[in-house]
Amino acid sequence: MAPLTPRVVVAVDVKKKPWEQKLPLHNRWHPDIPPVADVTEGEVFRVEMVDWTGGRVGDDTSAEDIKSLDLTITHYLSGPLRVVDTKGVPAKPGDLLMVEICNLGPLRGDEWGYTATFDRENGGGFLTDHFPCATKAIWYFEGIYAYSPQIPGVRFPGLAHPGIVGTAPSMELLCIWNEREKELAENGIGLLKLCEVLHQRPLANLPTAENCLLGMIKEGTPEWKKIADEAARTIPGRENGGNCDIKNLSRGSKVYLPVFVEGANLSTGDMHFSQGDGEVSFCGAIEMSGFLELKCEIIRGGMREYLTPMGPTTLHVNPIFEIGPVEPRFSEWLVFEGISVDEAGRQHFLDATVAYKRAVLNAIDYLSKFGYSKEQAYLLLSCCPCEGRISGIVDSPNAVATLAIPISIFDQDIRPRSGKVPAGPRVLKKLPDVLRCTYDGNLPTTQNPCRSK
Amino acid sequence: MAPLTPRVVVAVDVKKKPWEQKLPLHNRWHPDIPPVADVTEGEVFRVEMVDWTGGRVGDDTSAEDIKSLDLTITHYLSGPLRVVDTKGVPAKPGDLLMVEICNLGPLRGDEWGYTATFDRENGGGFLTDHFPCATKAIWYFEGIYAYSPQIPGVRFPGLAHPGIVGTAPSMELLCIWNEREKELAENGIGLLKLCEVLHQRPLANLPTAENCLLGMIKEGTPEWKKIADEAARTIPGRENGGNCDIKNLSRGSKVYLPVFVEGANLSTGDMHFSQGDGEVSFCGAIEMSGFLELKCEIIRGGMREYLTPMGPTTLHVNPIFEIGPVEPRFSEWLVFEGISVDEAGRQHFLDATVAYKRAVLNAIDYLSKFGYSKEQAYLLLSCCPCEGRISGIVDSPNAVATLAIPISIFDQDIRPRSGKVPAGPRVLKKLPDVLRCTYDGNLPTTQNPCRSK
Amino acid sequence: MAPLTPRVVVAVDVKKKPWEQKLPLHNRWHPDIPPVADVTEGEVFRVEMVDWTGGRVGDDTSAEDIKSLDLTITHYLSGPLRVVDTKGVPAKPGDLLMVEICNLGPLRGDEWGYTATFDRENGGGFLTDHFPCATKAIWYFEGIYAYSPQIPGVRFPGLAHPGIVGTAPSMELLCIWNEREKELAENGIGLLKLCEVLHQRPLANLPTAENCLLGMIKEGTPEWKKIADEAARTIPGRENGGNCDIKNLSRGSKVYLPVFVEGANLSTGDMHFSQGDGEVSFCGAIEMSGFLELKCEIIRGGMREYLTPMGPTTLHVNPIFEIGPVEPRFSEWLVFEGISVDEAGRQHFLDATVAYKRAVLNAIDYLSKFGYSKEQAYLLLSCCPCEGRISGIVDSPNAVATLAIPISIFDQDIRPRSGKVPAGPRVLKKLPDVLRCTYDGNLPTTQNPCRSK
Amino acid sequence: MAPLTPRVVVAVDVKKKPWEQKLPLHNRWHPDIPPVADVTEGEVFRVEMVDWTGGRVGDDTSAEDIKSLDLTITHYLSGPLRVVDTKGVPAKPGDLLMVEICNLGPLRGDEWGYTATFDRENGGGFLTDHFPCATKAIWYFEGIYAYSPQIPGVRFPGLAHPGIVGTAPSMELLCIWNEREKELAENGIGLLKLCEVLHQRPLANLPTAENCLLGMIKEGTPEWKKIADEAARTIPGRENGGNCDIKNLSRGSKVYLPVFVEGANLSTGDMHFSQGDGEVSFCGAIEMSGFLELKCEIIRGGMREYLTPMGPTTLHVNPIFEIGPVEPRFSEWLVFEGISVDEAGRQHFLDATVAYKRAVLNAIDYLSKFGYSKEQAYLLLSCCPCEGRISGIVDSPNAVATLAIPISIFDQDIRPRSGKVPAGPRVLKKLPDVLRCTYDGNLPTTQNPCRSK
Repeated sequence: MAPLTPRVVVAVDVKKKPWEQKLPLHNRWHPDIPPVADVTEGEVFRVEMVDWTGGRVGDDTSAEDIKSLDLTITHYLSGPLRVVDTKGVPAKPGDLLMVEICNLGPLRGDEWGYTATFDRENGGGFLTDHFPCATKAIWYFEGIYAYSPQIPGVRFPGLAHPGIVGTAPSMELLCIWNEREKELAENGIGLLKLCEVLHQRPLANLPTAENCLLGMIKEGTPEWKKIADEAARTIPGRENGGNCDIKNLSRGSKVYLPVFVEGANLSTGDMHFSQGDGEVSFCGAIEMSGFLELKCEIIRGGMREYLTPMGPTTLHVNPIFEIGPVEPRFSEWLVFEGISVDEAGRQHFLDATVAYKRAVLNAIDYLSKFGYSKEQAYLLLSCCPCEGRISGIVDSPNAVATLAIPISIFDQDIRPRSGKVPAGPRVLKKLPDVLRCTYDGNLPTTQNPCRSK
Repeated sequence: MAPLTPRVVVAVDVKKKPWEQKLPLHNRWHPDIPPVADVTEGEVFRVEMVDWTGGRVGDDTSAEDIKSLDLTITHYLSGPLRVVDTKGVPAKPGDLLMVEICNLGPLRGDEWGYTATFDRENGGGFLTDHFPCATKAIWYFEGIYAYSPQIPGVRFPGLAHPGIVGTAPSMELLCIWNEREKELAENGIGLLKLCEVLHQRPLANLPTAENCLLGMIKEGTPEWKKIADEAARTIPGRENGGNCDIKNLSRGSKVYLPVFVEGANLSTGDMHFSQGDGEVSFCGAIEMSGFLELKCEIIRGGMREYLTPMGPTTLHVNPIFEIGPVEPRFSEWLVFEGISVDEAGRQHFLDATVAYKRAVLNAIDYLSKFGYSKEQAYLLLSCCPCEGRISGIVDSPNAVATLAIPISIFDQDIRPRSGKVPAGPRVLKKLPDVLRCTYDGNLPTTQNPCRSK
Repeated sequence: MAPLTPRVVVAVDVKKKPWEQKLPLHNRWHPDIPPVADVTEGEVFRVEMVDWTGGRVGDDTSAEDIKSLDLTITHYLSGPLRVVDTKGVPAKPGDLLMVEICNLGPLRGDEWGYTATFDRENGGGFLTDHFPCATKAIWYFEGIYAYSPQIPGVRFPGLAHPGIVGTAPSMELLCIWNEREKELAENGIGLLKLCEVLHQRPLANLPTAENCLLGMIKEGTPEWKKIADEAARTIPGRENGGNCDIKNLSRGSKVYLPVFVEGANLSTGDMHFSQGDGEVSFCGAIEMSGFLELKCEIIRGGMREYLTPMGPTTLHVNPIFEIGPVEPRFSEWLVFEGISVDEAGRQHFLDATVAYKRAVLNAIDYLSKFGYSKEQAYLLLSCCPCEGRISGIVDSPNAVATLAIPISIFDQDIRPRSGKVPAGPRVLKKLPDVLRCTYDGNLPTTQNPCRSK
Repeated sequence: MAPLTPRVVVAVDVKKKPWEQKLPLHNRWHPDIPPVADVTEGEVFRVEMVDWTGGRVGDDTSAEDIKSLDLTITHYLSGPLRVVDTKGVPAKPGDLLMVEICNLGPLRGDEWGYTATFDRENGGGFLTDHFPCATKAIWYFEGIYAYSPQIPGVRFPGLAHPGIVGTAPSMELLCIWNEREKELAENGIGLLKLCEVLHQRPLANLPTAENCLLGMIKEGTPEWKKIADEAARTIPGRENGGNCDIKNLSRGSKVYLPVFVEGANLSTGDMHFSQGDGEVSFCGAIEMSGFLELKCEIIRGGMREYLTPMGPTTLHVNPIFEIGPVEPRFSEWLVFEGISVDEAGRQHFLDATVAYKRAVLNAIDYLSKFGYSKEQAYLLLSCCPCEGRISGIVDSPNAVATLAIPISIFDQDIRPRSGKVPAGPRVLKKLPDVLRCTYDGNLPTTQNPCRSK
């Protein structure tokens, strides 16, 4: 008789604050955050997670919580978990940690989520120069499906996944991160033209002790202070995996993570019910609390065997993934294209980010012809299972990026038609819109120049 | 009784030079290149096309033709075709032209193709700083499958598509193109950091009369000279569609193209037997001659109805696509990730191009562990049906891009394994490699810094 | 704020006997079994179910429980549920009840299942003349995956579904069932040649009070006795849905059920973690306890609008289904064919059952060449996601049936190869086999005649 | 340089009669029909084929040609081809012949097909007792798509395939066929209840010299007469493959055929643009002329290694198939169910044929609610890519069969809806219908009993 039920390694109570959980959470990357539990190679175990904000966003009718959200608090992670083999020997630096996602989902009793975009003064989003206001939509789950009172006429199956799966960095890797990001934060705007096209700010999120939660390390102690000052923020994906936001990392997927510290120190969090490629509105998936059922395997010496160091050190690697077999199937897609010419008509050189920005703007405008507000379309394209592709990256000067939307998630037929025959109930202008706040800053909103004529 | 067989509107003879074809070809975009034939809304018609170089690349054992290829000759297009409705009224500026790809394929008697990357001094490719030599691989077709003597151990079904489908630009749009690209060519390197990371050159391909072929316009006439001096080169995709290189634009797909001149003046070319997202080696699809069977529909006033002008004028639009129902199905994928940190370890800001470059480098290095040379892997990832995704574009400072490879195209099992059990016959080092030339320039090759230690 | 969590309408405790559950279960179809609860159109609710035997089959190392299982006890169903609209008006005879399966799965703490075939003297299975012994395999679940210690070398994602979803029959319909099945039981062997080819017995399972469980009707009362004597057994699927065993009826599917009694009286049970088309070994899915999250809609007058009465009365209808969007994707299949010639070489006329029997026998024999015992292959093909097709049903005299097996569920490559190169670890003869009992009856086992030569 | 273009081994001219073709065709199975050409293991070669009737059915407005079609003429096959290995050694009895379908399609200039059902006195079809008249629909091809003027409102991509791929039987196998089919023809109606439910006649098609075409054997010679009297008719699929009508046997598929005579003597024919599982209307695919591009491999001794003899001799085997990777993808299906209770309300024992008959009747009746005539629905379900499944074959007494229809092939949304909101243009009653003849026989038409009340 085999053990039937995954052992619950980390349980959370969504009615409690992140710092009140029985097993303490953490919201920074650092090698000295101690593991909260051991897991053994081969066993299936369960980890529960609060939503990325630890409950600061409400299932209510206002977007004020989004507007005032402090990004130094994110993301609350469960773990770290120390991974050992069946003989009790821990994973070691240089090993590769295979993590299989056997199952995952929302927490029972908490079956809802939200998608939002931040105020331009407070983090913004991919299109923050066009959409400077904080907005929010609530999603309710009906089993595999989600629907939103704020975005009527769509209902889709979720491809649930953890936004964050990562191992702890070594001290050496942590220093590399802090140095390169500091350099960008200080000099980026001057050096990188793309910073002007992408108005999202700040350029990087450097270490700060503010709102720092470090698991078993007691706040205020000297150890806490030292770690808090140097621990990496969790927003970007990096060599350790982390906030990769790969929407296909769902049931049956595998992640092959590099191991930098003894035990691997695996952390997970930021559960998503669904996300589109790019997660364009930033707080852009259907954000939720949730659980993971995982199984690990240690591939001894696997970093050297399978990963590619590409940079000044052998630590400059990236994880590998395998996609699982149970993704939702869609057979019909409408595809929007963008090229690397920005809204001002300026030509960029093979810039996939600029091209993708234009593809997303095109898709938003298109959907607005079918009864949606542009804010509804922006949030929808951020969280529904759309695909963002780099289609052409060599035909200078234009990168070509595409955004493909599954047609069947809509109640109405959104394809171009010559006869204008409506198929299905068309969404009306008078329907509810996203929850939104005012923008009180004084940065200019990007206007579509051809519209002002 | 319906007309059974698509009318052959443009036939080509691959044994003749591009300028010797019965209906003349063209290799520039310009409103004044006259249509070579009319097609009527609703009829299914056939267009044949030479390969993009018009036969300059040979099915032989040398890559010298690639090394010396002059990019001013490309791409030889069939058309333009004037599209009229069933009453004979032509498509008009402001209409949307729906082009359905009913069928397509190689030309009978010419069932082969090639994938190549250019010399760094002559156009290069996405990774030209790593791979400065011209290389070439030949592919032979067995019905839906392709295999290459130079890249053993893989065989895959093609997702054939035209690299180029486009309408003629109006004079106003043509001027916009020439101005913005000239600005880039003159100032790009100074302004855009990405130009330093992507070593591919030139930054833009400005109009030139050299090797210019203009259909029915006789070479050397004053009209020819005027058009040749201002006609746009065909390399980048632009507002009119053009060289979009969208690999999913295969059987059953639809393209919705803006109409800028009376009759639409539809041109097609650059047939691909297969391509990976990004077409990274530049001459990177399985390039071939081929045919298209098309059906058009004119959506009157459709530009205003369905497209999004995004830029200084209402001409700043992009086409829309629908993907067809008969793509090859793959259920297992191995996924490589890249983040926007370049090979030197420098941090870029949400730069999907840099992230994708690193993902591709990671994948090439990984495949080289299974018996392939890096040049083989580079060409393979350029032409096999792999998917390039923009996974995360908001988690500053790191864009996350992914490259997913279908596992089943390989003879061997390329997944990471702890036991190192080989599954299937493993490719051996001693097998044939790609055809390659020397690099005779003096630009430095990008070294993976961590390897030199 | 929407209600977040599906209301638990029926809860079960798998440690208790079926007749000890808080809300009583039932194992017969009859209009007079009273509803145990109401559910409202539009609400998402949860129903829990014991496994079909109510816990009589153990997670142990013996098949004796299978050998001695009494089929009069099955299937324990949860419900009936009375379905009302938002105004409280119940579904009425003539309506169509749409039941959407929003989610489903095993019960937490009970993540295992079993596949078995009965002794030839006790129900048998599709191939009982070839495999007269009772056998059993245990399956353990790792999230979406199942594996069996008794059938090594395979692991596959489950397409979980309820074997039984049905509404209560009216008295008129019940009489129709009892009459036609009694006629078969009494005269079938003489009339129907197929009865000789399919040795499974009995021909029909007629009403019996033995082991009868009737929900809220107290055993031993006159009412109980009357109902028990006439209530239909649950083994076959019938006009009310019932034991349809449609393996694709998984997450996101919809069933459109006819309503025969006021309130519809919806019952569900017989949860399967996975099943192959045909469920050939009879106790042939991966049988488990489990839960359903359902949502109902009443289509008033929908039977007349959408269903087809085909038979002597308007009650002779069948349900309609829609398949959900999240089935496991497999891209490679090995397909076995059978024609309607039986094992003795006798020709049958367009008989799809005979053809399918031969296709299954062919597949079992084939898999036995890769290290499996025939009993392992029989149970595997009964429960893995294989597809059984009626390929040709008009080319007299041969029906052609096919059985398609997804190749990727095996550790080894099971395709025919000329070089006999093993790909992957081949299963060895010495590995564990299914649990099995002796066959103590004296019916002859069907021998493959060509083997005895 | 590899050979580029498949060698044309058999060419046909559709303007000529079957017996006037340059390489003679044949319409019987016999070991003594001599090969018309050799093909070598590994080479890709092309075979062209007339439609199964050799041009007797016209692209016109009458179904008279169907009504009067003589089934003794069918099917005209191309071949036989003698398969040799690279050393010139032919395939031998006991080998397994792998035939890969590299490509296939209609013949250029003949891009149309037809679907029909025969008169009840002349072959009938699966539902001939319900639909006794000969009917016909013409289909035109637009690349991968087909549409019919007689069945408006549907257009679908074809999954083209050969209805017939087979090797020549040995004399011993031929005798087995003739004996068992003669036994059925003589005694079937008395013995088999299914013959009464399936009114299609004759029960078997025994050898006849009438309309016999035997390739290189000159008609009227003693050799011709001998062979004609004993050669098997091509209608049913048998041990040698033959008329399997497996609709998924399309591009990229492989067939593993047993070899019974030296050289294998491979024949192909009966090309289908598309077919539904079961091919229910008998002349039920979209029948066309066409070509195959094939590649063979000889697996020496493969019959013993991989096939299962199941019957009195080792010749009682069936081929194996692998499905190709480029099937059309459909993600939404509406599923109809049938159980083994016939139209008279009689109970049959686990009879999948009876269950499938009812599922098809249910689906036809359902589609007739959306504006189609029942004859239109019958032909459509016979030729569109619908799936026929054996869902349950053990729950006695009811077999459960299902028929799944891809929803997206219809212009209108055919799902059940409570609000009756039409989605898409609904087909109107007044539209064209199938071409049809009168039924002049005096057999009774099966009435749906519940309708007559």
